[in-house]
Amino acid sequence: MMNYQLLKRLLVGAPLPSHREKHERLSVSTALAVFAADALSSTAYATEEILLALAIPAYAIYAGFANILSIPIAIAICLLMVIVVASYKQVIKAYDQGGGTYEVSKEHLGLHASHVAGAALLIDYVLTAAVSVCAGVDALVATKWVPPHQRVEWACSFLAIITIINLRGVKESGLFFSIPAYIFIFAMVTMVVTGLVQALTGHALAPLPVNFDHGWQGLGVPANIQDLLGIGLLLAMVKAFSHGCTALTGIEAISNGVKAFKEPAADNANKTMVIMGCILGFLFIGMTILAFFHRVMPMENNTVIAQVATSVFGGGSFFYYLVQFLTMVILIFAANTSFAGFPRLTSILANDGFLPRQLMHLGDRLVFSNGIILLGLVSAGLVVLYHASTHDLIPLYAVGVFLSFTLAQAGMVKHHIHNKEGNWKYSLFINGFGAIVTAIATIILLLEKFWEGAWIVVVGIFGIMWVFRKIKCHYISVARQLILPDSPQAFSQSVIEHTVVVLVSSLHRGTLPALRYARTISSRIEAIHVELRPDLTKRLVDAWDDWGQGVPLTVLKSNYRSVIQPLMEYIEEVDDRYPDDMVTVIIPEFVTKKFWHNILHNQSSLLIKAMLAFRRNKVVTSVRYFLEE
Amino acid sequence: MMNYQLLKRLLVGAPLPSHREKHERLSVSTALAVFAADALSSTAYATEEILLALAIPAYAIYAGFANILSIPIAIAICLLMVIVVASYKQVIKAYDQGGGTYEVSKEHLGLHASHVAGAALLIDYVLTAAVSVCAGVDALVATKWVPPHQRVEWACSFLAIITIINLRGVKESGLFFSIPAYIFIFAMVTMVVTGLVQALTGHALAPLPVNFDHGWQGLGVPANIQDLLGIGLLLAMVKAFSHGCTALTGIEAISNGVKAFKEPAADNANKTMVIMGCILGFLFIGMTILAFFHRVMPMENNTVIAQVATSVFGGGSFFYYLVQFLTMVILIFAANTSFAGFPRLTSILANDGFLPRQLMHLGDRLVFSNGIILLGLVSAGLVVLYHASTHDLIPLYAVGVFLSFTLAQAGMVKHHIHNKEGNWKYSLFINGFGAIVTAIATIILLLEKFWEGAWIVVVGIFGIMWVFRKIKCHYISVARQLILPDSPQAFSQSVIEHTVVVLVSSLHRGTLPALRYARTISSRIEAIHVELRPDLTKRLVDAWDDWGQGVPLTVLKSNYRSVIQPLMEYIEEVDDRYPDDMVTVIIPEFVTKKFWHNILHNQSSLLIKAMLAFRRNKVVTSVRYFLEE
Repeated sequence: MMNYQLLKRLLVGAPLPSHREKHERLSVSTALAVFAADALSSTAYATEEILLALAIPAYAIYAGFANILSIPIAIAICLLMVIVVASYKQVIKAYDQGGGTYEVSKEHLGLHASHVAGAALLIDYVLTAAVSVCAGVDALVATKWVPPHQRVEWACSFLAIITIINLRGVKESGLFFSIPAYIFIFAMVTMVVTGLVQALTGHALAPLPVNFDHGWQGLGVPANIQDLLGIGLLLAMVKAFSHGCTALTGIEAISNGVKAFKEPAADNANKTMVIMGCILGFLFIGMTILAFFHRVMPMENNTVIAQVATSVFGGGSFFYYLVQFLTMVILIFAANTSFAGFPRLTSILANDGFLPRQLMHLGDRLVFSNGIILLGLVSAGLVVLYHASTHDLIPLYAVGVFLSFTLAQAGMVKHHIHNKEGNWKYSLFINGFGAIVTAIATIILLLEKFWEGAWIVVVGIFGIMWVFRKIKCHYISVARQLILPDSPQAFSQSVIEHTVVVLVSSLHRGTLPALRYARTISSRIEAIHVELRPDLTKRLVDAWDDWGQGVPLTVLKSNYRSVIQPLMEYIEEVDDRYPDDMVTVIIPEFVTKKFWHNILHNQSSLLIKAMLAFRRNKVVTSVRYFLEE
Repeated sequence: MMNYQLLKRLLVGAPLPSHREKHERLSVSTALAVFAADALSSTAYATEEILLALAIPAYAIYAGFANILSIPIAIAICLLMVIVVASYKQVIKAYDQGGGTYEVSKEHLGLHASHVAGAALLIDYVLTAAVSVCAGVDALVATKWVPPHQRVEWACSFLAIITIINLRGVKESGLFFSIPAYIFIFAMVTMVVTGLVQALTGHALAPLPVNFDHGWQGLGVPANIQDLLGIGLLLAMVKAFSHGCTALTGIEAISNGVKAFKEPAADNANKTMVIMGCILGFLFIGMTILAFFHRVMPMENNTVIAQVATSVFGGGSFFYYLVQFLTMVILIFAANTSFAGFPRLTSILANDGFLPRQLMHLGDRLVFSNGIILLGLVSAGLVVLYHASTHDLIPLYAVGVFLSFTLAQAGMVKHHIHNKEGNWKYSLFINGFGAIVTAIATIILLLEKFWEGAWIVVVGIFGIMWVFRKIKCHYISVARQLILPDSPQAFSQSVIEHTVVVLVSSLHRGTLPALRYARTISSRIEAIHVELRPDLTKRLVDAWDDWGQGVPLTVLKSNYRSVIQPLMEYIEEVDDRYPDDMVTVIIPEFVTKKFWHNILHNQSSLLIKAMLAFRRNKVVTSVRYFLEE
């Protein structure tokens, strides 16, 4: 017991008193690192995702066409981000106790919509955690430092580390994660600025001349195939757009976790969200432009970010390796955003009675410890189930968060129509437009990935909604059953008769205090012994006159060499003997000095307690005798 | 709880009453199948092992020389078997309560030697179980029905099946395993007899002319190299001999399990052992002669048994497939011999206080259930640890059983010198010779395999001996501490004062019976509430006057949002208030209708109980309130 406490202290730290809660909250700079990790990590691959989607159809038209198209798509995604940020600014303002999408949908779209949002977000947080560490391990495997068959072990170890750091408290984990996050931001900004300056001062390749005649028409393909290509390209652009959108997870996490911020919490949350949006937008568009300047396309063994770093800093330079290393670190740490969002959401859901109550309370270190542990376990389970394969997990990803974006914006649309505050028509337009765009993105993501795994998310959402419902029903039923009766008199007057039964396996020092204790709590006492070996029983009966303290001894026969069955039958018989009474079963136990020594002794008392726990009007009492050695 | 019982009944069957024990014992024919499985399975590979050891040095002299040499070696092994059987016949006669080697060494060679024997046998039983299923799975993989990466899963599944069948009782498992064992014996005898008849009637290849001039001298190698070859050949023969000896495990198991036989137990055990020896000897020598007639040598993808079956019955015949299939089955079922020996040995060791007491008793089905489960778990653990690789497990194998053979025979030597019964000088010679031969075989096995893994067995034996010692010390210490004091008076006169503390988290229907119960067992009662949420505490205090049944309520503050710490401090304070008293802590609990519903409720009562279990003079009592829905 003491060793467990010590280990807990070492891993997690000493408990924090409740009044420290205000001091544990995050400043804007730390919060940025916690909530932006996921969004920042996406700058490492969002450009690549767009170029990958465009590569084949665009190449058919013109070699550098994918790079050209990627820029407007990146801009469009950033515009969507602006809309989402603007919309969540209003969510945060309206729901400054946190809860984000879930609270918005609960108020404006009803219980079912809020359950869809809650379930979708829970799934997406778990997936974000799992996908992030797996992608980080992918990068680690690519360096050849880690053999591929150890992927699951490494991914689970990273999850364990992130879980423990989060259990240490909000502030401590924020500080831990902010260092690599800020170095990453610094390195990426340096790369983008340097690259852009190089390009503008003519040190990079000149941008390709945009000449549609060379490609589109000049290829000489017949008109109907050109049309088909046009449709293919359009679909590819839509796909590129929806893939690029995965960068937006962090925004929802901020709206969820307003209470993690220093006061004024809502203002600080908004500030963090806007700064995060600016950094993300700058890096994302900057990376896409640099990729365009250097005609970078994704290659099998070379990521877009590595190629850009090579072009800007040179292949073997310090900055090249720094960018590579930080990309790996930030991919793993992106999981931390889930650890900021998930436990807060489960706490809100538990508070509403839709999840087990244990998820509701702050733990020793003023974080929702149970939620953090739950996220760690579930995401590790997912990693094991999917053999840490990023490829298999990706199709499940992002559907949930887009569903929640759509619901949040739809909720805000109703909010504006209902409240008509300030410049509400303008806000209504923003949120309405955002709702339509995110709804389209959701549908595209769902359709595109449905049979690859997104159907699991749909089933999962319905499954979790069913669990929410079942849990709520249970709590309502328990509360109804436990409500106090109308009058206190009935209870305070009636007196319980009770019979005490002492189980005696043999006469030893541990039996005597149990008998003595039994005598103090009732005058109706019986000692019971189950005969397993007749020689031992005889010895007990012979000694009973001297040692039995006047308590009558009953010997029960056992046909099946089991203590349990005859005991249970006899206890039921005693219970039947007197109506309206209780039977107190006293079990003498001795406690060994060392905890693990107990495995050397018969644990039938545990079994007896477990069996009696399900019988009415039985009270089980252990009277312990402590061994000194 | 009920579901668990139902599952247990389905898997294991209804409990058997103690008086059925005699009926559960084995007849000679069933016992043969149980104890001979391991020995029989060795006829499937013993000839192959000998030929493998001889192949290279013998081939240097003469192409068919390995086959010629294998016959005297097989005969020598059978002679050793006769000696071991003769020796164990005397062991069984002298120790008709079972225990075999362990009991012999305990009486004649002292405690340490008996511990060596016990530890060595425990290890070897576990290894026999693990190696057998792995070898069976190897054969299954060779058929291509099972992909290689599922080896561990299959091996563990077979172990699970064998464990469950053994838990069903001695007789039932005997019947189950006897069918394939007898079909195997029938098929093998048919093969050997058919093959020998064919050979003698001239339908097989004629035996090779034994002409040493052709080989030994005729090769024209210089004399000193001939000498070297001679030494190499000698070493190879010794190695072949010791490898072939692995067939003898089952003999020790019979001497161990005399009590499993129908009365007269010792006679029946002896009869079984002799019959087993005859079958084993006949099949082993027969197989070796057939291999000689057909000039069979082990090949990479074709076992000796398969080649012999091809030669005798033809490659695609029914009997060929029958022999192949039964070989696979018997290899897996060979594990069953361990399940007959291991639990009996652990029960004897537990009875002497060297292993946990739980291993001592017969379970529901009149078998040593805990020992069976332990063997299943440990051997499955070994299979997982060694990735079900027969190749890696084999070096650990057989050292233990030969060590125990040596100890048994050495013990019998002392027995004869001491008792001088009947024709004791003749017996002394047999056992003395047997002791020397088995000691040499032990040393050869140990030296040959030491660095390949046999060192683990040596370390394991010392480790297990240390555990035996530690467990015995613990039991002695506990017995000394629990011994009754000199006079009963001291105990029966003193009266315990006790204070009752009722923990109240909130006022509900479950709290009321606990308060009522507290009032019946003592007049010194306090109710304690730990404040977690001031609003709820206020509500409790307001309602207390009406519902508190006159019990004073104390509210404790908690700085760390934990119930445990303030509670423990307060209980210690109550305990200090009155010297020489006990504190009874009453915890009101409600029990949900469905077991798993409990995960939806705070389990802090479990934690409180666990914390109090290690404090003196505290008695913990749960008063349960049962929910109806």
